[in-house]
Amino acid sequence: MKPNLINKRKIFNDPVYGFITIPDDLIFDIIEHPYFQRLRRIKQLGLTHLVYPGALHTRFHHAIGAMHLMNQAVSLLRSKGHIITKAEEQGVLIAILLHDIGHGPYSHALENSLVLDMNHEDISEIFMDKLNVIFDGKLSLAIEIFKNIYPKKFLHQLVSSQLDMDRLDYLKRDSFFTGVSEGVTSTERIIKIFDIVNDNLVAEAKGIYSIEKFIIARRLMYWQVYLHKTVLSAEYMLMKILKRAKYLVEKGEELFSTPAFRLFLENNFNKEDFLNKPFVINNFSELDDFDIFTSIKVWTKHHDKILSLLSKNLVNRHLFRIELQNKAFDFAYIKKIKDKTIKFYNLKEDEAEYFVYSDITSNYAYNLKSDKINILYKNGEVVDIAKASDQLNISVLAKAVTKHFLCYSKELI
Amino acid sequence: MKPNLINKRKIFNDPVYGFITIPDDLIFDIIEHPYFQRLRRIKQLGLTHLVYPGALHTRFHHAIGAMHLMNQAVSLLRSKGHIITKAEEQGVLIAILLHDIGHGPYSHALENSLVLDMNHEDISEIFMDKLNVIFDGKLSLAIEIFKNIYPKKFLHQLVSSQLDMDRLDYLKRDSFFTGVSEGVTSTERIIKIFDIVNDNLVAEAKGIYSIEKFIIARRLMYWQVYLHKTVLSAEYMLMKILKRAKYLVEKGEELFSTPAFRLFLENNFNKEDFLNKPFVINNFSELDDFDIFTSIKVWTKHHDKILSLLSKNLVNRHLFRIELQNKAFDFAYIKKIKDKTIKFYNLKEDEAEYFVYSDITSNYAYNLKSDKINILYKNGEVVDIAKASDQLNISVLAKAVTKHFLCYSKELI
Amino acid sequence: MKPNLINKRKIFNDPVYGFITIPDDLIFDIIEHPYFQRLRRIKQLGLTHLVYPGALHTRFHHAIGAMHLMNQAVSLLRSKGHIITKAEEQGVLIAILLHDIGHGPYSHALENSLVLDMNHEDISEIFMDKLNVIFDGKLSLAIEIFKNIYPKKFLHQLVSSQLDMDRLDYLKRDSFFTGVSEGVTSTERIIKIFDIVNDNLVAEAKGIYSIEKFIIARRLMYWQVYLHKTVLSAEYMLMKILKRAKYLVEKGEELFSTPAFRLFLENNFNKEDFLNKPFVINNFSELDDFDIFTSIKVWTKHHDKILSLLSKNLVNRHLFRIELQNKAFDFAYIKKIKDKTIKFYNLKEDEAEYFVYSDITSNYAYNLKSDKINILYKNGEVVDIAKASDQLNISVLAKAVTKHFLCYSKELI
Amino acid sequence: MKPNLINKRKIFNDPVYGFITIPDDLIFDIIEHPYFQRLRRIKQLGLTHLVYPGALHTRFHHAIGAMHLMNQAVSLLRSKGHIITKAEEQGVLIAILLHDIGHGPYSHALENSLVLDMNHEDISEIFMDKLNVIFDGKLSLAIEIFKNIYPKKFLHQLVSSQLDMDRLDYLKRDSFFTGVSEGVTSTERIIKIFDIVNDNLVAEAKGIYSIEKFIIARRLMYWQVYLHKTVLSAEYMLMKILKRAKYLVEKGEELFSTPAFRLFLENNFNKEDFLNKPFVINNFSELDDFDIFTSIKVWTKHHDKILSLLSKNLVNRHLFRIELQNKAFDFAYIKKIKDKTIKFYNLKEDEAEYFVYSDITSNYAYNLKSDKINILYKNGEVVDIAKASDQLNISVLAKAVTKHFLCYSKELI
Repeated sequence: MKPNLINKRKIFNDPVYGFITIPDDLIFDIIEHPYFQRLRRIKQLGLTHLVYPGALHTRFHHAIGAMHLMNQAVSLLRSKGHIITKAEEQGVLIAILLHDIGHGPYSHALENSLVLDMNHEDISEIFMDKLNVIFDGKLSLAIEIFKNIYPKKFLHQLVSSQLDMDRLDYLKRDSFFTGVSEGVTSTERIIKIFDIVNDNLVAEAKGIYSIEKFIIARRLMYWQVYLHKTVLSAEYMLMKILKRAKYLVEKGEELFSTPAFRLFLENNFNKEDFLNKPFVINNFSELDDFDIFTSIKVWTKHHDKILSLLSKNLVNRHLFRIELQNKAFDFAYIKKIKDKTIKFYNLKEDEAEYFVYSDITSNYAYNLKSDKINILYKNGEVVDIAKASDQLNISVLAKAVTKHFLCYSKELI
Repeated sequence: MKPNLINKRKIFNDPVYGFITIPDDLIFDIIEHPYFQRLRRIKQLGLTHLVYPGALHTRFHHAIGAMHLMNQAVSLLRSKGHIITKAEEQGVLIAILLHDIGHGPYSHALENSLVLDMNHEDISEIFMDKLNVIFDGKLSLAIEIFKNIYPKKFLHQLVSSQLDMDRLDYLKRDSFFTGVSEGVTSTERIIKIFDIVNDNLVAEAKGIYSIEKFIIARRLMYWQVYLHKTVLSAEYMLMKILKRAKYLVEKGEELFSTPAFRLFLENNFNKEDFLNKPFVINNFSELDDFDIFTSIKVWTKHHDKILSLLSKNLVNRHLFRIELQNKAFDFAYIKKIKDKTIKFYNLKEDEAEYFVYSDITSNYAYNLKSDKINILYKNGEVVDIAKASDQLNISVLAKAVTKHFLCYSKELI
Repeated sequence: MKPNLINKRKIFNDPVYGFITIPDDLIFDIIEHPYFQRLRRIKQLGLTHLVYPGALHTRFHHAIGAMHLMNQAVSLLRSKGHIITKAEEQGVLIAILLHDIGHGPYSHALENSLVLDMNHEDISEIFMDKLNVIFDGKLSLAIEIFKNIYPKKFLHQLVSSQLDMDRLDYLKRDSFFTGVSEGVTSTERIIKIFDIVNDNLVAEAKGIYSIEKFIIARRLMYWQVYLHKTVLSAEYMLMKILKRAKYLVEKGEELFSTPAFRLFLENNFNKEDFLNKPFVINNFSELDDFDIFTSIKVWTKHHDKILSLLSKNLVNRHLFRIELQNKAFDFAYIKKIKDKTIKFYNLKEDEAEYFVYSDITSNYAYNLKSDKINILYKNGEVVDIAKASDQLNISVLAKAVTKHFLCYSKELI
Repeated sequence: MKPNLINKRKIFNDPVYGFITIPDDLIFDIIEHPYFQRLRRIKQLGLTHLVYPGALHTRFHHAIGAMHLMNQAVSLLRSKGHIITKAEEQGVLIAILLHDIGHGPYSHALENSLVLDMNHEDISEIFMDKLNVIFDGKLSLAIEIFKNIYPKKFLHQLVSSQLDMDRLDYLKRDSFFTGVSEGVTSTERIIKIFDIVNDNLVAEAKGIYSIEKFIIARRLMYWQVYLHKTVLSAEYMLMKILKRAKYLVEKGEELFSTPAFRLFLENNFNKEDFLNKPFVINNFSELDDFDIFTSIKVWTKHHDKILSLLSKNLVNRHLFRIELQNKAFDFAYIKKIKDKTIKFYNLKEDEAEYFVYSDITSNYAYNLKSDKINILYKNGEVVDIAKASDQLNISVLAKAVTKHFLCYSKELI
């Protein structure tokens, strides 16, 4: 490829924002890199499309959208007199573009199944460091912003805080593609009220109602979409399938899978391995939704009854019933269902856990422990929104809401 | 007109909902009546278009839209097995169609200036009774529903309660035309979760987040639109103009006005007058935004300095500065501004009140005293949302928020 | 007013585009001027709201919207390397902002009734010249662009041509507020394909389908909205009312009206008068929808039968039946209806023209005689779209479509 | 599963239409069947998402959406007095639901690579017949409508004609998810003007502009999306990959693939095979986008240079340059590029066809040969739109537009 002949002023059509322009050549080249193109094959919301059939959008699209919002935020802050250099602009755009690059396929479900003690942020950093080598150190500033070691802290806050471009984009995008129109937030309006005080991102007081609505919309999206009980049921089924597959592989069973997926079925890599064994991150960079789901499709015919049954249930969307309640489930109740299950499927005692399981899920709408959302008054005062709101009891919203759930086969009822 | 030759299956194009079909001939004829056509000339949001230039939609459009939602609600409730007879359907549709027919022009500003001790609901009832005579008693059931004396109480709740079709439509319509996209609510979703328990309108628990968001959106619309400080400033200016005009008329001054408007400038009619003197309601039925604003335009050249100054300020959108705060304004501060004003405009002591005035405005997002919003759980239990919400502190939202404001001329600063 | 204390960075909320920022202080001051504020009281689509109840948007909103698009066009053209100086940017923004300032109330209906041999462009020029005096000559460049005497011709084309910002805005805005969603055009996409070749505005060939669709959408809006038969019927009724009013005034009859309106009822001013008698343009600058419609409302009770009958019909939306066909109406058919009308209303022979009238209306989707829409190919070639389109026969679209119509009272049928 | 315990009144959230309700139990059960669930894994627009990243919607979603429109069409036609029995309603809903069930993965690209002389309609019929057996003959009426052997012909036209629910949904859905807003059509408005004359679906003349716009929007979608040159380039690359894979399999090479996919790589089944060998349709029913794309991902490391090179290019979106023009490409020009390619990649003569290829693509906006779009005038006359349109030269639109294209590696330039 002779890069100088390629038009790098590409424009993306985004049903959410209209047109998105790639701001410069370096960013164009990063987007073109296979590490980033992989995100085209990782759905933003995993198995959520089993409930909301439109929710097939990818992490690729989200990353591009968040970069677009960052562009708007940079312009807005400059128009209010804050200095953001050309290099910082590029840095913060790259930081948001790559903030999720470490996500694996179905990552909410698999983060704990395929890798040990690592989250996607750790892996994102490894990818960024590798890209920085490939692009001759041009990502150093972006990485400093991402790791929050760059002096201007507000740049990191634009990438990661309770008002970051990540959240602004995903809330809007997820509500767009799921069709849950109530989650829609006016990103344009929220960005318009941004300002910087003492190197901190703040929101002008006149926009306090927009911020409140953003918090409420996020809360709604959590319970209506992200933690939707049928989605939970599907995600846990996927985890159980993975668990069974790993167990069979350990036992030496033959299992269809792509080579990249096989590596992670056969091993339990930890952070050390990702850092020190190049083949680990290389194989991870080839893994996407296709590897996992295609394998599961083939497993529907595996001779192991448990693996094939669970796989068939997932593929044909024959999901487990899920009960949700505020307190833990009664032990006797679980026991009764387990017994029925063992009988129904003719299982061994310890195999019941694949078909009956309970866990908790929780969420808070506003996080008091992380960076606050700061409200700027006309007199220059800056106040945490949890105190600023005249009425909406945000400290109450900051309390985690926890729900218990129990999954089991519909056939048992 | 030979009514049988007229196509009464008219369809309205509504930018908010798409197409709206007129359900039957009686409703068609009511809409055609001059009493209802008058609503075409009364803006839903009075002077709000001085801040949000798109907010020119009328009470006519709102009434048609609310009727459209009522149609959906009736279908939904029937599909859930509740009996609503043909006559009740027509009744509840007419009741919502006419719920606001008593509104005068700029009614938020003028309700207390032009008529005494009457609100638009009282006048709506008078109009409905008159229409009932004209249409041979066919509106009797609608009037019973409107007055809440019809046995099936839930029909009245669809017309007037914290989840009525009036609110559902105006919140959506007002946010649409102002462009305040955050006020948008999913009327479709909220209606889908309606149900009836013990003759009360309830909302299924699965939709509780939608209801919460509806309450929050309403709160946002109040502070961002309905009680926007510049709108308040304009509305109070209009009241002061009216006050001065009435004062001048009492003094025997010549004043340009339409005949219908003149009657209300020269008199202070009360409910008795509306009920007993037919010319009063007849003249009222001819009054709309045009009478008021056209007269004010002519008054910009009146020889009375106060009347012409205020009129010019309103017509050319040269509004008074408005300060807003949580506590009452300091007496000394007001005094200082009044003194400056008197000197600046060369006024008499008692004329200062036309140029400097303070008042309070208040709002609550959820009203504990009126009909509650009841949430229906799967086990059949019904709970007030103020108690049902797991997190959103609705009892806090039910506390009135009160703000004090002070208006004075920008020239003084 | 101490202008330096006023925040001139005002933002408008526009339901069509979101936020619109006022670009500079001069433009802010022009918008604040009473000449421009008058446009807040002139509906863009006259009586169209009688058919599409949402169509209440004003020329004020349209002018602001067109300025917003101009801002986008200037940025886009600069990003493609074309030089537009700061002064030219301000000039072209002001030119589009003021392009319609000469419109009178209900101007499609009244242009020929109230003034003689003048169109709104002539009056716009007079207003611009007056504003130029008020603002110390700062509008000179804008006026040169508007009159197409500025050297860079493409700037004028952005203000007035078949792809100008006027059309782009009004098509989008009118379809938004009428709810005729099919008229929606992607202004963003069309502006993105703009370019300049030899001082001419052109559109890149890759966007040819967007241009085609824009032409088709415009054609649809003409027949579905602008020339909707019920709208035609209402507009002609308004003209007849005006005609009768002028006739009565000439005969010396008393007629309610605002002072500004009276002047135009009593006189027939021509261009000379507008240019040489300052009171003429001054009075015109006070005239808006309110003057006309309020007077007609009062005329519904005038003792002249013709005036009151027509006025009542318009105010209560009891419009004349309108027949539309491709060829002229048969003389005998018209005669028969006239005879019936004379008998029905007990009229004199020459009064029938107020109740029965026919005329023609016509439109072409693409105008071969005005500036062409030029398409730019990658090889640099520039071709008229009428020749460039591979399939859509634009030369056919350029043929005027003419329709004949006949109006008469519904009572006659 | 005890079906009677399952709530079959499922509602889908559709970002395009809002809520979609499943109309009855049989349809619910068909949707739940693995044959239909498979459509969740087949993207409606194949590789189009490589250009429009939002275009990931599936044939599942489209089928549900088309059923929703059919529901509206049935209601509308009944409201105009046409009789559609309960059984016919269910039949026509099932017919549209299953109209595309025979589609394979990436079917535009693969229809000619994986199966011989069969199109998806043939396979849809086979699936329907199989489902009819499974559901005890309850699909017989639906199949008659689909095959156009049911007496009421207009029911078939709703399923398959130039105004069918298939087109209405896919145009709207595809423009929604691609973000090509200009393709949006008002399905609501078009359905509102439907009527039946002599057992034929017609459109009322008052809606002729909507139909015209629908035809133009469809044309725009063809050139801007369906036949977008980069999409063509990707689809042809996929075909070349398939071709190479089949060639290698025939030669006895080892190739990673899922079992279902392998069957079609190793064989060339024709219609006879599909009808007579149950394992063929069974394996086909397990094939989706995952099988194909996952295999291609693994092939990026295959030792066959051609297979791995093409696979890598597709997976990492390093597509071939594509030139498009109205006439055939010059033989000498193609030869020159082929020679360069052979040299660059060090290929054998006959291997060049994998890297350099030309073909034609064509489309007509209106098809004169298929069912016409008939326009119904108020006087009862019915006219083909090609003749009815007063101006839009639809006979010209009916001419096929053909374009030639040539693909080759970007490295060669």
